[in-house]
Amino acid sequence: MSGIVVQSIERAESQTIIGLGEAGVATVHEAQGRTGLLASYMSPIFHGAQIAGSAVTVSVAPGDNWMIHVAVEQVKPGDILVVAPTSPCEDGYFGDLLATSLMARGCKGLVIDAGVRDRRDLTRMQFPVWSKTVWAQGTVKETLGSVNVPVVCAGALVNAGDVIVADDDGVCVVKREDADTVLAAANRRLAAEEEKRARLASGELGLDLYGMREKLKAKGLKYV
Amino acid sequence: MSGIVVQSIERAESQTIIGLGEAGVATVHEAQGRTGLLASYMSPIFHGAQIAGSAVTVSVAPGDNWMIHVAVEQVKPGDILVVAPTSPCEDGYFGDLLATSLMARGCKGLVIDAGVRDRRDLTRMQFPVWSKTVWAQGTVKETLGSVNVPVVCAGALVNAGDVIVADDDGVCVVKREDADTVLAAANRRLAAEEEKRARLASGELGLDLYGMREKLKAKGLKYV
Amino acid sequence: MSGIVVQSIERAESQTIIGLGEAGVATVHEAQGRTGLLASYMSPIFHGAQIAGSAVTVSVAPGDNWMIHVAVEQVKPGDILVVAPTSPCEDGYFGDLLATSLMARGCKGLVIDAGVRDRRDLTRMQFPVWSKTVWAQGTVKETLGSVNVPVVCAGALVNAGDVIVADDDGVCVVKREDADTVLAAANRRLAAEEEKRARLASGELGLDLYGMREKLKAKGLKYV
Amino acid sequence: MSGIVVQSIERAESQTIIGLGEAGVATVHEAQGRTGLLASYMSPIFHGAQIAGSAVTVSVAPGDNWMIHVAVEQVKPGDILVVAPTSPCEDGYFGDLLATSLMARGCKGLVIDAGVRDRRDLTRMQFPVWSKTVWAQGTVKETLGSVNVPVVCAGALVNAGDVIVADDDGVCVVKREDADTVLAAANRRLAAEEEKRARLASGELGLDLYGMREKLKAKGLKYV
Amino acid sequence: MSGIVVQSIERAESQTIIGLGEAGVATVHEAQGRTGLLASYMSPIFHGAQIAGSAVTVSVAPGDNWMIHVAVEQVKPGDILVVAPTSPCEDGYFGDLLATSLMARGCKGLVIDAGVRDRRDLTRMQFPVWSKTVWAQGTVKETLGSVNVPVVCAGALVNAGDVIVADDDGVCVVKREDADTVLAAANRRLAAEEEKRARLASGELGLDLYGMREKLKAKGLKYV
Amino acid sequence: MSGIVVQSIERAESQTIIGLGEAGVATVHEAQGRTGLLASYMSPIFHGAQIAGSAVTVSVAPGDNWMIHVAVEQVKPGDILVVAPTSPCEDGYFGDLLATSLMARGCKGLVIDAGVRDRRDLTRMQFPVWSKTVWAQGTVKETLGSVNVPVVCAGALVNAGDVIVADDDGVCVVKREDADTVLAAANRRLAAEEEKRARLASGELGLDLYGMREKLKAKGLKYV
Repeated sequence: MSGIVVQSIERAESQTIIGLGEAGVATVHEAQGRTGLLASYMSPIFHGAQIAGSAVTVSVAPGDNWMIHVAVEQVKPGDILVVAPTSPCEDGYFGDLLATSLMARGCKGLVIDAGVRDRRDLTRMQFPVWSKTVWAQGTVKETLGSVNVPVVCAGALVNAGDVIVADDDGVCVVKREDADTVLAAANRRLAAEEEKRARLASGELGLDLYGMREKLKAKGLKYV
Repeated sequence: MSGIVVQSIERAESQTIIGLGEAGVATVHEAQGRTGLLASYMSPIFHGAQIAGSAVTVSVAPGDNWMIHVAVEQVKPGDILVVAPTSPCEDGYFGDLLATSLMARGCKGLVIDAGVRDRRDLTRMQFPVWSKTVWAQGTVKETLGSVNVPVVCAGALVNAGDVIVADDDGVCVVKREDADTVLAAANRRLAAEEEKRARLASGELGLDLYGMREKLKAKGLKYV
Repeated sequence: MSGIVVQSIERAESQTIIGLGEAGVATVHEAQGRTGLLASYMSPIFHGAQIAGSAVTVSVAPGDNWMIHVAVEQVKPGDILVVAPTSPCEDGYFGDLLATSLMARGCKGLVIDAGVRDRRDLTRMQFPVWSKTVWAQGTVKETLGSVNVPVVCAGALVNAGDVIVADDDGVCVVKREDADTVLAAANRRLAAEEEKRARLASGELGLDLYGMREKLKAKGLKYV
Repeated sequence: MSGIVVQSIERAESQTIIGLGEAGVATVHEAQGRTGLLASYMSPIFHGAQIAGSAVTVSVAPGDNWMIHVAVEQVKPGDILVVAPTSPCEDGYFGDLLATSLMARGCKGLVIDAGVRDRRDLTRMQFPVWSKTVWAQGTVKETLGSVNVPVVCAGALVNAGDVIVADDDGVCVVKREDADTVLAAANRRLAAEEEKRARLASGELGLDLYGMREKLKAKGLKYV
Repeated sequence: MSGIVVQSIERAESQTIIGLGEAGVATVHEAQGRTGLLASYMSPIFHGAQIAGSAVTVSVAPGDNWMIHVAVEQVKPGDILVVAPTSPCEDGYFGDLLATSLMARGCKGLVIDAGVRDRRDLTRMQFPVWSKTVWAQGTVKETLGSVNVPVVCAGALVNAGDVIVADDDGVCVVKREDADTVLAAANRRLAAEEEKRARLASGELGLDLYGMREKLKAKGLKYV
Repeated sequence: MSGIVVQSIERAESQTIIGLGEAGVATVHEAQGRTGLLASYMSPIFHGAQIAGSAVTVSVAPGDNWMIHVAVEQVKPGDILVVAPTSPCEDGYFGDLLATSLMARGCKGLVIDAGVRDRRDLTRMQFPVWSKTVWAQGTVKETLGSVNVPVVCAGALVNAGDVIVADDDGVCVVKREDADTVLAAANRRLAAEEEKRARLASGELGLDLYGMREKLKAKGLKYV
């Protein structure tokens, strides 16, 4: 079932991807009905990056980073590498040499349900990574995995070519075929928030702005 | 038992609260007999903030942030919102819109035994938050909780009006009625530390400064 | 079995220690056959420090920091304190006063499988610490432990005088008697990486650079 | 703040306690508005015990079981010992000797947010224990704690004399002053469940039994 | 995206399902290329059950078991309910009343990435459950989810109608369309193991039985 | 550094090992100064086994059980296999075939800081195992490790030939060279406990039996 590299994948439109990246994780997640988030333990190794790109997926054995080397060849400019081990692992699959190679191919970042190392170098290079941990533990190159097959990464299903959005709040996946719809919903949401923000900043209460008082009363809320 | 909003709470003196905030978490915790700390997983979403304020407590259902909207109305300048879910939850109950609303009311920060989102915005706004995690997962508004009832937040009992102290070392709660006594003890402690720091910096050993050698010998410590 | 302070320990050559520190954790760990790492939860309290030094080991009871005071006296310039509780503990064993004392003795940093406090002060002082957590919880001084006996710290065996290397990727221990050999291997590795980095940056694939294609094919990798 | 033994505590009526024990944890928890549960990690060391009793609370230092010996003297027949360390600890505070002593005084069981040991003996003696873990790690007797003061045990506030209910589903605390009211509600709940169980066993659907179809439709549920 | 009940799903052949159940989790997992396992924390609430059935999937909100009631109606004899919350939750979604209802419909068991309660009753009824924990925490009925949509449950993708195999080693999912192929592979594996077991029991070494000595030598294994 | 099989190891006297096994984990751990315990997460896969034996140690790669096959050949009657992965792993390294092979060689049990599978079979065979988890996840056979080298297993240093004691309270390691001394201390402890147990059972308080009242008073304990 493993040992397969899918070489040709479909990607979303570049403009759509850019738009989703600008919207950010929280907005995109809400815009698609509160779905698509990877687990809360997926953290950026440095703060401030906000990216979106097409997923090149990699299924790897625990403690074995061989398939990441295979996957690099499949990366196109604008892609994000999404790496999922077949059982939980915190080893440092990835460091500055692989990042150098990915940057040379236009890769925008890495999402890995495992560890990475060389945090200082990766930060200096400004190559954004979302990982389970940072740890130097080395890996071997012995067991095949697959590239561009569907993977469950940190609790979320990711198909090759899906849009990955990542920022300081974590990582969200958008199905490729839903990307345009989700972007439209995200943009509506952003527009609506602008006005709300101004009203809340001026001291108006959410209770009034969102018209919650009636429903709260109906549920039985009591002020004492 | 839930569905109650207590509108009137007592608060400690403003000067006492300021003093406790200046003393910081470690000192205040020691000054009240090594009590009052919230669990070690409560981390600031950005470093450097050091605050104190009166607790406005919120008991919320898992995955439901409705009562935070209710609680905003109860906040007075200088308060800190303390949010505890009724069962463990990492969802992102809170983001930049709620922070905007709280800042408009003079709220000094948020302590939440759950997740928050919009870390980048909250950091830019310099609205300090101590949380269990940062995660974008959205919440619903369906189930009542309560405001200003006693809650256990991250392992510590917090009553409305208690003084919350929070900095890079975590979060500590001081009972409102003990606040003056604790501040006095904290200040004595700070004064005593000043002299110790100077002596230690000059190379004097804690073994001598604290007079430990006799007690260690009596316990049977052996140098080989 | 506890209650012992070993006063005289052997240390590696100063130049060797400096070299290992410059090589960093990931390289040193690889250079000694992927061994010696402390657990992935050992994190720096601030980013950017990269140090090496001789281990002064401390075995402490849970919630009791007495032996750290004893250990300070055994520290020589260039040493790193390595503290391991006898059962898991997250209490804040260590703060700015102990750091002041250690800095006065030329200590280069602390590695502790427990908590520390006063993060803001320690960061300002630029005293590097790798710990399990940051938490203000205070400790007592009642129970003896030992200094400079072998300890298992965060899953790794550390003997007094072993070389500790620590940076943003975690902590690695090198047996004192292997230090020269490991440094030589680390330096060879660093030299080899230099050329690889340049070739990868120019777009050459790791598949070709490392000659992996044949072995992958032999294992049965299929491109579709 | 510690070092106090409260010798005289109020307890609920014996018949009330028996009734709550018969109702069991899930029913009692529901009957008091879904409150009072200790954390999910509190597990019985053997299955099948279902008990209730009055809490004798013990606040202990991490890795120090001295105060449990003090607490034994305060136990009256029908009581349950509730032990909470001041910081998280998994040490084995309690074994067969302490159980022997408690059984001699009529104690009905132990609830401890830490570890216990001698599982085989405790099981043979049929002394029920709910704990965080089972582990042999020994403890010291050096630091004072308190007996019969309020404690937060595994996330729940417990006052001395509160009613503790424990079975295979975990542990629940009922405030002493609410015990009669909660028992009445629990009994109503049990009576109502009897009929429901029979109807569900006969194949009737909860959707119909609870009249959910309308509300689901109103919320927008779609059958496809 | 939620609020949908898919009423008609395809199921694997009854004989295939029976065969997979007899093979058990470890064998089925190996037979499909070491894939399909749910996370290691999914444990049976009592030991000894070994079942297989068709998945009826349920996506639920955290702390809200409403959709389980909806799902009961969709269960056919031989099915297994697979419940996944949209964010991590340990609440007790399920107890003896729901089990009574499911048993009346011929349901063979429950797999839930959350908590259940009434362990003693469920054990007495011999209704098998694999869950993240056992905990009494009650849930609400306020928020819609979906039935028979694809879910990620404890890290594994489950589509409605897939075959679920569960025993004391955990839970494995087999894609419906692969069920026959996997069963054939599982049966071959079982047959092969029979002979191996006999030879190993007679003292033959796996090193010889599997012909490993050459490969180990080639890799450089040294006997000293 | 790996790829080594040490074929000849020293073992403790058979009578000593038997005696340590009869004393059990808690007693042995106390008898050697509260040292030697493996981490609290090491649990027996079935209750009631209490064993001791000489450690045959195995260092394995994550997700790779090859070296266990190598280690079987080194096992002598009365030995216990102690398996430690080089980075944290929960995979099911071990099942009924390996157990069959080990039992044929007189092996008394397995201690593994990872997962095992075939729990039902292993229980039926009464082959005792202490592991981190039970999980079916399969492993590969690609990477060398070592046999009978020192390992850190679940936080404890184990040298080949050390005595392993394991029961329902966990696992304890005794250095081979200390085994006789520890057994003598354990036996003294057991003898002393006998009398204490009788006195406690008769209602005498530990406060009196251990003469604690004076020391408690001196520390400042107050009865109110």
